Amino acid sequence: MTTAAISADAGITEQLAEFVAARPAGGYPPAAAHAGRRTVANAVALAAGAARHQAVTAVAELVSELGGDGSASVLGTDMQLPAQWAALVNGVAVHVEDFDDTHLETVVHPGAPVVPAALALAEHLDATGRELLDAVVLGTEVALRVAMAAGPRHFDRGWHLTGTAGHFGAAAAAARVLGLDRETTGNALGIAGTQAAGLQVALGSMTKALHPGKAAMNGVEAALLAARGFTGPTDVVEARRGFAFVTSPDPHLGPATSELGERWEVERNTFKPYACGIVSHPAIDAALAIRGYVRSPSDVVAISVGVNPIVLDVMGVEDPPDGLQSKFSVYHCVAVGLLDGAAGPAQYSDERATADDTRAVRRLVTVETDDAIARDEAWIRVSLADGTEREHHVEHARGSEARPLTDDELRDKARLVAGPVLGEHAVDALIALALRLEELQHASTLTAAARPHSRKAAK
Amino acid sequence: MTTAAISADAGITEQLAEFVAARPAGGYPPAAAHAGRRTVANAVALAAGAARHQAVTAVAELVSELGGDGSASVLGTDMQLPAQWAALVNGVAVHVEDFDDTHLETVVHPGAPVVPAALALAEHLDATGRELLDAVVLGTEVALRVAMAAGPRHFDRGWHLTGTAGHFGAAAAAARVLGLDRETTGNALGIAGTQAAGLQVALGSMTKALHPGKAAMNGVEAALLAARGFTGPTDVVEARRGFAFVTSPDPHLGPATSELGERWEVERNTFKPYACGIVSHPAIDAALAIRGYVRSPSDVVAISVGVNPIVLDVMGVEDPPDGLQSKFSVYHCVAVGLLDGAAGPAQYSDERATADDTRAVRRLVTVETDDAIARDEAWIRVSLADGTEREHHVEHARGSEARPLTDDELRDKARLVAGPVLGEHAVDALIALALRLEELQHASTLTAAARPHSRKAAK
Repeated sequence: MTTAAISADAGITEQLAEFVAARPAGGYPPAAAHAGRRTVANAVALAAGAARHQAVTAVAELVSELGGDGSASVLGTDMQLPAQWAALVNGVAVHVEDFDDTHLETVVHPGAPVVPAALALAEHLDATGRELLDAVVLGTEVALRVAMAAGPRHFDRGWHLTGTAGHFGAAAAAARVLGLDRETTGNALGIAGTQAAGLQVALGSMTKALHPGKAAMNGVEAALLAARGFTGPTDVVEARRGFAFVTSPDPHLGPATSELGERWEVERNTFKPYACGIVSHPAIDAALAIRGYVRSPSDVVAISVGVNPIVLDVMGVEDPPDGLQSKFSVYHCVAVGLLDGAAGPAQYSDERATADDTRAVRRLVTVETDDAIARDEAWIRVSLADGTEREHHVEHARGSEARPLTDDELRDKARLVAGPVLGEHAVDALIALALRLEELQHASTLTAAARPHSRKAAK
Repeated sequence: MTTAAISADAGITEQLAEFVAARPAGGYPPAAAHAGRRTVANAVALAAGAARHQAVTAVAELVSELGGDGSASVLGTDMQLPAQWAALVNGVAVHVEDFDDTHLETVVHPGAPVVPAALALAEHLDATGRELLDAVVLGTEVALRVAMAAGPRHFDRGWHLTGTAGHFGAAAAAARVLGLDRETTGNALGIAGTQAAGLQVALGSMTKALHPGKAAMNGVEAALLAARGFTGPTDVVEARRGFAFVTSPDPHLGPATSELGERWEVERNTFKPYACGIVSHPAIDAALAIRGYVRSPSDVVAISVGVNPIVLDVMGVEDPPDGLQSKFSVYHCVAVGLLDGAAGPAQYSDERATADDTRAVRRLVTVETDDAIARDEAWIRVSLADGTEREHHVEHARGSEARPLTDDELRDKARLVAGPVLGEHAVDALIALALRLEELQHASTLTAAARPHSRKAAK
């Protein structure tokens, strides 16, 4: 950290505020718009699907018992809450199954903090679908730019970026829905940015999902407070005692604003095909592929997988005692890939985490890490009882930037997660609305489509 | 950071949780009880006095417009809000004038996060005065212990400890009021601890006061969530990717639990006599003392003050443009001490910050820093127009641990801050209640006494 580096980068927060406040409606390329729609589609399906998860109901009941009614929907329910609390509950719900979206370079899951913040205020203020999409695209871009500014060592130090950088994205999205000017948006970024938090020690507990929930909520509050004249530090990203320098030993401030509005990081957002930490997805693909070469799992005597070192950093739990912890176990990921041929929410239940067969196969897995293996790459080598070996190499994981899910695959995923709550037809309708978001006169059409009507009617 | 150091300190969070959950009612020495009562008295007076501050009304109006009624009081008003929102507003209010309490070793202002959290839940649950005092004493102790664990370099890195360590204290206090067991208290500390935040860049904006407000609110929420089975990391303080190691390059984990329950850090909490950052208080004392040797401020041609280096670190603003910034200017502190013979809220108004006389005297001040000068020590040397000099040395600042405010001085301070809102007789009654807190059958007697009854009656 040098004084020169800081002053050369002065004004980053102001530039981001200007970007959010002044960008014209739809002022981004078609690919960014498409990414924004998919980010919304993925998030609303996940939130609706998680409406009955214990972590979600605990938060929803807490705030609704202590507070009053509001004008923003809890997705997948008929509950309406004050905007910041709806953002909180939906933020938890999007993230709680670890099945959301990912910007792999920064390991930010932007949909969980950004979409609930934008959606709650859009519904509260009866914004249009276009306004909602603008807020999601710009808010996501800000979250990713700030994450890049914090640099990779922010992650290494132990921060969960979906919580930290998520605060900036949620505040930017909320400020955009409110139509705040540049100066007020800068205050909103300051008010939210100083609350940026989320420790990696929370991974494996329900509190991990609270990180984006709180980011969404704090972003909404920050924008509303700024609109009332509440002041925050308008150099919160780049100041010496601001976000980047306090939380990272090696900030990379340049990428925060370089080619801002020309190159769109939001286009690099990807969507998880598997319900666990994304860094294990290449290993799951490898396990799924090798399955075709193995007659029966009982023939397997040893499994080696080669992955990028980040995998053991964040998913190194060897013998997870419950479903939540199993999402942070590359050993479990490989085992269910091989045993079940799947890695959906069902594979990360308490039952599967503690089943005899998964525990036995997990014990066979050896993980080798290598910096030369990319984050979306893996290899697997399986030794069989007959003395032979099988190998497979995954160049790019499914759902990665190089091999993105199609819109149809995204809809299939939405059916998988939200079908049990909304019904499959309703999920298809919800995703269709999200994928033409800017045509909606009322953003609330989307939230209305995420209510469990059919179930209510059936009662 | 070594693995050995971490494993040797495993279980700190659990030990703190055990301390909070298992300590018997009143299980602390008389000096700790006295400190707890004074912490409450000081906080409620400050909060009531700040009820009409713009930062406080902005937050109160935001949450009350979006949410519903509740059962916890906003001090100094007739407003009742949901418990976590009352904690938020009162937390902002206690801190907004920078006139609250301080544990000087860690520069934590524990009353602002801890008292509002305990008070809101105590009122919500109709707890006794004894239960409230227990929660404040134990919560304050936890805040200070965690601050010590983060070590001095946590502060140096740019964290505002009243926000960061405040989260732990507020959660501990809230858990105690709820009567949570050890395990659930551990979850509450984890849920709150991962939200610990507050960047020093926010000093000088309204957002500084939001730090303890959010700590209080997040602590209340964390305890309520934990009570509903929401899980958090129960090793949040000491884990490798937990609070101390992520936020500090040099944690001192030992003091977190050494002689816990035997030596009481809460006894070292002190109460500010001046309405600005505490590190400038010795310099103010010096200016007030030298005033007796100066016929007229216009005779002064130069002023040198010697202080501990931390003063320029946090209060180095040379020409503050408004009242808020003037609280972070040792130059302004010395100037008003010399000109006005006082350093109360009136000295940190926008008017005084920009007045010609204060600006002129500020320009005469040279600050010399010296590690050999203690944090509660200062000297001043004034050069007069006739060529003579006057010097004064302050060994221990007024209000410091070595020279604490008496209960009478604390009541006088309460009159100064809360008198304009409640009236002086009502303030005296409020302080008298706080100073015999454990005798109250209902903690809500205290909050009722902080309502502006007399003003209402007079209307």
